[in-house]
Amino acid sequence: MADPTRDILETFPNPYPQRDYSIETVCPEFTSLCPKTGQPDFGTLTITYVPDQLCFELKSLKLYLQQYRNHGAFYEAVTNTILDDLLAVTQPRSMKITAEFTPRGGIRTNVVVEYSGSSTQRH
Amino acid sequence: MADPTRDILETFPNPYPQRDYSIETVCPEFTSLCPKTGQPDFGTLTITYVPDQLCFELKSLKLYLQQYRNHGAFYEAVTNTILDDLLAVTQPRSMKITAEFTPRGGIRTNVVVEYSGSSTQRH
Amino acid sequence: MADPTRDILETFPNPYPQRDYSIETVCPEFTSLCPKTGQPDFGTLTITYVPDQLCFELKSLKLYLQQYRNHGAFYEAVTNTILDDLLAVTQPRSMKITAEFTPRGGIRTNVVVEYSGSSTQRH
Amino acid sequence: MADPTRDILETFPNPYPQRDYSIETVCPEFTSLCPKTGQPDFGTLTITYVPDQLCFELKSLKLYLQQYRNHGAFYEAVTNTILDDLLAVTQPRSMKITAEFTPRGGIRTNVVVEYSGSSTQRH
Amino acid sequence: MADPTRDILETFPNPYPQRDYSIETVCPEFTSLCPKTGQPDFGTLTITYVPDQLCFELKSLKLYLQQYRNHGAFYEAVTNTILDDLLAVTQPRSMKITAEFTPRGGIRTNVVVEYSGSSTQRH
Amino acid sequence: MADPTRDILETFPNPYPQRDYSIETVCPEFTSLCPKTGQPDFGTLTITYVPDQLCFELKSLKLYLQQYRNHGAFYEAVTNTILDDLLAVTQPRSMKITAEFTPRGGIRTNVVVEYSGSSTQRH
Amino acid sequence: MADPTRDILETFPNPYPQRDYSIETVCPEFTSLCPKTGQPDFGTLTITYVPDQLCFELKSLKLYLQQYRNHGAFYEAVTNTILDDLLAVTQPRSMKITAEFTPRGGIRTNVVVEYSGSSTQRH
Amino acid sequence: MADPTRDILETFPNPYPQRDYSIETVCPEFTSLCPKTGQPDFGTLTITYVPDQLCFELKSLKLYLQQYRNHGAFYEAVTNTILDDLLAVTQPRSMKITAEFTPRGGIRTNVVVEYSGSSTQRH
Amino acid sequence: MADPTRDILETFPNPYPQRDYSIETVCPEFTSLCPKTGQPDFGTLTITYVPDQLCFELKSLKLYLQQYRNHGAFYEAVTNTILDDLLAVTQPRSMKITAEFTPRGGIRTNVVVEYSGSSTQRH
Amino acid sequence: MADPTRDILETFPNPYPQRDYSIETVCPEFTSLCPKTGQPDFGTLTITYVPDQLCFELKSLKLYLQQYRNHGAFYEAVTNTILDDLLAVTQPRSMKITAEFTPRGGIRTNVVVEYSGSSTQRH
Repeated sequence: MADPTRDILETFPNPYPQRDYSIETVCPEFTSLCPKTGQPDFGTLTITYVPDQLCFELKSLKLYLQQYRNHGAFYEAVTNTILDDLLAVTQPRSMKITAEFTPRGGIRTNVVVEYSGSSTQRH
Repeated sequence: MADPTRDILETFPNPYPQRDYSIETVCPEFTSLCPKTGQPDFGTLTITYVPDQLCFELKSLKLYLQQYRNHGAFYEAVTNTILDDLLAVTQPRSMKITAEFTPRGGIRTNVVVEYSGSSTQRH
Repeated sequence: MADPTRDILETFPNPYPQRDYSIETVCPEFTSLCPKTGQPDFGTLTITYVPDQLCFELKSLKLYLQQYRNHGAFYEAVTNTILDDLLAVTQPRSMKITAEFTPRGGIRTNVVVEYSGSSTQRH
Repeated sequence: MADPTRDILETFPNPYPQRDYSIETVCPEFTSLCPKTGQPDFGTLTITYVPDQLCFELKSLKLYLQQYRNHGAFYEAVTNTILDDLLAVTQPRSMKITAEFTPRGGIRTNVVVEYSGSSTQRH
Repeated sequence: MADPTRDILETFPNPYPQRDYSIETVCPEFTSLCPKTGQPDFGTLTITYVPDQLCFELKSLKLYLQQYRNHGAFYEAVTNTILDDLLAVTQPRSMKITAEFTPRGGIRTNVVVEYSGSSTQRH
Repeated sequence: MADPTRDILETFPNPYPQRDYSIETVCPEFTSLCPKTGQPDFGTLTITYVPDQLCFELKSLKLYLQQYRNHGAFYEAVTNTILDDLLAVTQPRSMKITAEFTPRGGIRTNVVVEYSGSSTQRH
Repeated sequence: MADPTRDILETFPNPYPQRDYSIETVCPEFTSLCPKTGQPDFGTLTITYVPDQLCFELKSLKLYLQQYRNHGAFYEAVTNTILDDLLAVTQPRSMKITAEFTPRGGIRTNVVVEYSGSSTQRH
Repeated sequence: MADPTRDILETFPNPYPQRDYSIETVCPEFTSLCPKTGQPDFGTLTITYVPDQLCFELKSLKLYLQQYRNHGAFYEAVTNTILDDLLAVTQPRSMKITAEFTPRGGIRTNVVVEYSGSSTQRH
Repeated sequence: MADPTRDILETFPNPYPQRDYSIETVCPEFTSLCPKTGQPDFGTLTITYVPDQLCFELKSLKLYLQQYRNHGAFYEAVTNTILDDLLAVTQPRSMKITAEFTPRGGIRTNVVVEYSGSSTQRH
Repeated sequence: MADPTRDILETFPNPYPQRDYSIETVCPEFTSLCPKTGQPDFGTLTITYVPDQLCFELKSLKLYLQQYRNHGAFYEAVTNTILDDLLAVTQPRSMKITAEFTPRGGIRTNVVVEYSGSSTQRH
């Protein structure tokens, strides 16, 4: 099965670029496969962003996320990859993704990644 | 059906303009139509503001919001429009609107727009 | 019926004026009349303050608030008036009142007024 | 605007008619108009039934219920009418509808109507 | 102030007398006075009934219950009286009232009275 | 300190003896001492009964229960004793007491005793 | 992709067949595909049974349910099929499955199927 | 490590054997080892019984249950064994144990065993 | 009965004084007497502190707080006194006490007192 | 039994070291022994950190924490020790551990320890 691709993401023009405002999108039906065991993982993604010129279209976001259904991915990597893809496609003023995964082995993990508008990359 | 108009909004004098205080109004029965599919959307609007000389009257707010019942409007646009209308009519010291829409396709979206009293517009 | 009067409020000396500390009093049984329709309104008042030399006595607060039972008062006005009365009687270091009213016409309103210890009045 | 019609309801063959089992469908986005005031009412319908030869199709149920969006109907009448329509179309072994309406004037109302498989009509 | 009277209660014809179904009405804003102390009591009334030929009208129920606002009444007596009044006016197939009063002195009391359609009176 | 006595309990005539109805009284502030360790126990008592000719008066119930504040009593014994005392004083048609005690040693205990109107005693 | 098969289910001997007792297993991570749209559906399965000579093994149940991950199945059919498979493999004294699916189009559906130990099949 | 033994359980005379009443004891800190993987399992035991001549003592129950801390035991077997031990030691009129185990592999299991006073054993 | 004394409080050396960290202790079973009416008050104390060289021992804290069981004390005074006693005995880097009392007369009161490490006393 | 050792903790390379992001891991099944009484304690650990070059592996974390199952440890000491071990092994940019222990003697305790990236040690 092909790797998930950001090409599937569609955008539409921000109807109100002259104002900073935020959009929060909650996706409680995210599922991928554990690359070590092949077992399914389940989680809820919460994407919050301040759009600049573009907003992502919800139906295409849904199809984009469904690409992970049969794709092996570690929690930390998949969350960072989704942020990278959404940044590349919408170039927002800022964006944050919180991924809450359901418990495995009695342990529950959340990952929070954020792009604050200026570079937070370490060199 | 005519477009929603802010002319329907009524105000009354702020009974205590000498003090900064905030009013929060929660409207859990907002509904509009999706402009793409024509299907109804449902949501909860929370309007918080610090009034200056005018407060909006609740019954007129209700009638104003009911204008969207058979009106097609995207989440992001409608929330910004309502903020614009309430700003124009009440000219508050500050105002914030949070719109929480019920899930569609397993995905839930909230929009938060804010006027902080000084211009936040981008040029 | 006579207007509510702050004369009914009793105080006692702050047992610990040498320390800044806060007292929160929650009154979930506040009721007044809508001045327009004459119908009863219901709400919860939360009063938080840092006392200076005086604390208000709880039984007298209860009787003070019961004066509004058959009194017509708008949400915004009544909350500001109660703050004024409590400020006049206890002269606290700071005080905040949150009034949460039960829904009317499918719409719910909260009012938050605050005295921060220095003048916040506008001239 | 035309009256709601049951003609819009579609069915599909019960995949397991040899077993008595129940299906519960919850519709939290029901809205109609108060015939007296013209104001919108909102509610949640819960439909539980034991199918015989036919099940109702969910998308057509949604469109059927949307017919009430601009239709005036009292709580008690609309709930009974919807039961009548669903009985006529699916002829189930039993069916129950619970309609929970949001508060009006500080008062909340639920209506429960039931068809138990044998006639419960009074003559 | 005059005693509460059932004359204020209005009815409308049951739109579906040929079917046994139930109506539940929840009134969370009931308030009366304690006949011993004169202090206000607060409670939630839940009225459930199977109508026969008549339903009570909600606005008149609200006005009927508001008569108790300045009326002294013990928990046990007031709940039985309201049942008697609603039975007299609507003559339902059955009716049940649950009254949940807010705590006094750290103690909370509920009263449940019921008319089951046949006489439950003791002689 | 003297043993708790039922003499402190006061009654008033049931205002509606001709109808079977139930009264539920919840006392979340019950406290007694563990007879083994002398440490305080805390619990919530819920008393539900169908009165016959007499109801217990709430203030006297409160004072009656406060007698256990410095009294040593096992969970099982104290709950049965309170039922015996309330039965003796009010002679109800039926009565049930549920006592929910807060956790001790990571273990939580509830005791439920009931008088169903006819003798449930074993000989 | 092959159809789900019950061959994957493993059992172990009931450790206590001389006593009727029940086992409830909750699987909140069930997912299948809608046969009409190809879109994923999500749900929670609750399986309750009184074992006879055999219990199903949990890890094999998990693998059995994962077979539906890329399988198209209607709510009503899939729930009945899973009951059939579990009945065939464990031959319990009784078994009940409740399937609660997440909302689609603002509508939520649960399916309840039950085997009560004697035949409930219709002929 | 030695097997858990019921010898550690202590009893005290039922203070009120002439009345049928029930005692519910909730133990949210039960832990044992999975006999297959050696990994710890966690659960909550709820024991409800109508005592006859004997009640179990809570501190000894706690020590009895702690014996399972390093003991391998399947869910179904351990719940039945604990019921057997408590029946043997207290000989109650009836007893029920509900064991709710925390999720493993995304699946949650509860076991309910019951002794109803007369023999429910199968031969 | 003697006044509560801080002499009963025991301490142990902070196992990790080289790091600033906080300890929160919640005591939901605090009870004292109202000095005006003699009636019991109930509340929950939450004590949060950053220890310096000493931590308070939990069993001795429990016995210290039990001294208030038959002691008359106003809400505001008792909370400040407990803070003074714990400060004197443990000399923490900072400490905060929140006392939430159960409702009296339909009114609920919380008191928050805090020592922030530097003197907050007024002169 | 040997003391818990950090040698059991395994790490994997942070898949995205160029971005500051946080990982929260919740372990609700932590249990150790009270060193004074030998009785088991139970708690929930929440570990939040910003990884630098290494992340801890979840299965090894689980095995690391299971070492405390039969180990005596005070709340304050064990929480600081676990932080030290995780810091030593993963050398994160920052890390915080919140440990919430279940009630003992009616008193509940939480411990919060934090490493903020720069030294917070006192000398």
